Amino acid sequence: MTDDSGADRLDKVRERLRAFAAARDWTQFHDPKNLSMAIVSEAGELAAELRWVANTAADEFVKDPAVRGRLEREIGDVGIALILLCERTGIDLLGAIERKVELNATNYPVDLAKGKSDRPAVPRR
Amino acid sequence: MTDDSGADRLDKVRERLRAFAAARDWTQFHDPKNLSMAIVSEAGELAAELRWVANTAADEFVKDPAVRGRLEREIGDVGIALILLCERTGIDLLGAIERKVELNATNYPVDLAKGKSDRPAVPRR
Amino acid sequence: MTDDSGADRLDKVRERLRAFAAARDWTQFHDPKNLSMAIVSEAGELAAELRWVANTAADEFVKDPAVRGRLEREIGDVGIALILLCERTGIDLLGAIERKVELNATNYPVDLAKGKSDRPAVPRR
Amino acid sequence: MTDDSGADRLDKVRERLRAFAAARDWTQFHDPKNLSMAIVSEAGELAAELRWVANTAADEFVKDPAVRGRLEREIGDVGIALILLCERTGIDLLGAIERKVELNATNYPVDLAKGKSDRPAVPRR
Repeated sequence: MTDDSGADRLDKVRERLRAFAAARDWTQFHDPKNLSMAIVSEAGELAAELRWVANTAADEFVKDPAVRGRLEREIGDVGIALILLCERTGIDLLGAIERKVELNATNYPVDLAKGKSDRPAVPRR
Repeated sequence: MTDDSGADRLDKVRERLRAFAAARDWTQFHDPKNLSMAIVSEAGELAAELRWVANTAADEFVKDPAVRGRLEREIGDVGIALILLCERTGIDLLGAIERKVELNATNYPVDLAKGKSDRPAVPRR
Repeated sequence: MTDDSGADRLDKVRERLRAFAAARDWTQFHDPKNLSMAIVSEAGELAAELRWVANTAADEFVKDPAVRGRLEREIGDVGIALILLCERTGIDLLGAIERKVELNATNYPVDLAKGKSDRPAVPRR
Repeated sequence: MTDDSGADRLDKVRERLRAFAAARDWTQFHDPKNLSMAIVSEAGELAAELRWVANTAADEFVKDPAVRGRLEREIGDVGIALILLCERTGIDLLGAIERKVELNATNYPVDLAKGKSDRPAVPRR
């Protein structure tokens, strides 16, 4: 187990966030409702960076150092709020992701979904 | 390095997502713009689960198994899209989170921020 | 038909937005995809204003002149992007709202929905 | 003043929404915080419809009757939540839009902004 290990890093981030919130007495604000609002607010700021950029220009656009810096900070914000929500609710973030990937694999079978951006078979609502 | 290690798990999730998208020929849709839209869309669905719940009831609300299942799937969706965006742009997710925590520590000094939910002096960007 | 009439005002806003975009040669950026991103980005900024405020404090919070000013500007931003999307797609905004209210009236019958914040009968997905 | 007048229609929508919420005893859930969450949640669902569609295909995409129907309902949802928030906070929706257009006209002067999707000099707030 070295400092470079993702396990250690994720654990350390969690520990850092816990200490950060405790030092500021912010845990009182970190209920699941508020954190879900924080996630979508930060995700909105992330999307704002790319709203006027064409799909075909987006990969090039994000190579600009200033853009990249803003993207990294917005991605950081979304990630922080997501980890805080998982901590608060006792949800295992990586486990939730792993299970959702497998659910998606079932919902979007390769033969139906291949090359199609619209959702096949499984109705969304 | 065991299967339980977060490093291995995060790497495996990345690998799984890469294979998932490749098998469906979906990489063509996964440009940074589309992925940022996916993140905010999924974050909106996550927030939708908690929009009518009072702050004071939110911790109890998320213990309901059906609610928890939906939350886990929405959290999984946000996490997947976030990882895909980082993969596409070459941004280190944990690194972005670590740097943003430290930036927040500077922007919200304990003595100004303690117990306050509103933003102190420091400009947002 | 006076200046105070909502019809005239909404028409005038539409006309103003059309001229605003044309003068800046921005119509090229105002496709339905970009505008839907603009709507959710601005909506995220609006939600950001209220993310740390308790439900029970929210009505009082928005009376603060500075908060109110920011809310008004964010509401203005969401409204502008919503009108631009309707203009671009030829969707009648008020008609869409009117029809959705009636659909909601069917989906959330009074006897099932009364006093309940969770969605009755009709499955979301 | 006819039924076709936007003023009458907007007033009627407001009146209908008031009656709708009162009949279901839902006004208790319609505080500014919850409504801002509803707006961004619905905006996220609206953006979800267009997340995998290329900019260049978006205008054509929204002509599909099924897509158009979903867009109209999502636009309706955003509009409803926006009107409810304005009602709750006493903010004049059209006035907020009008003032924001004029603020944008100052912030994005034609000579600096013409043909550019990126933000010019003027800080956002």
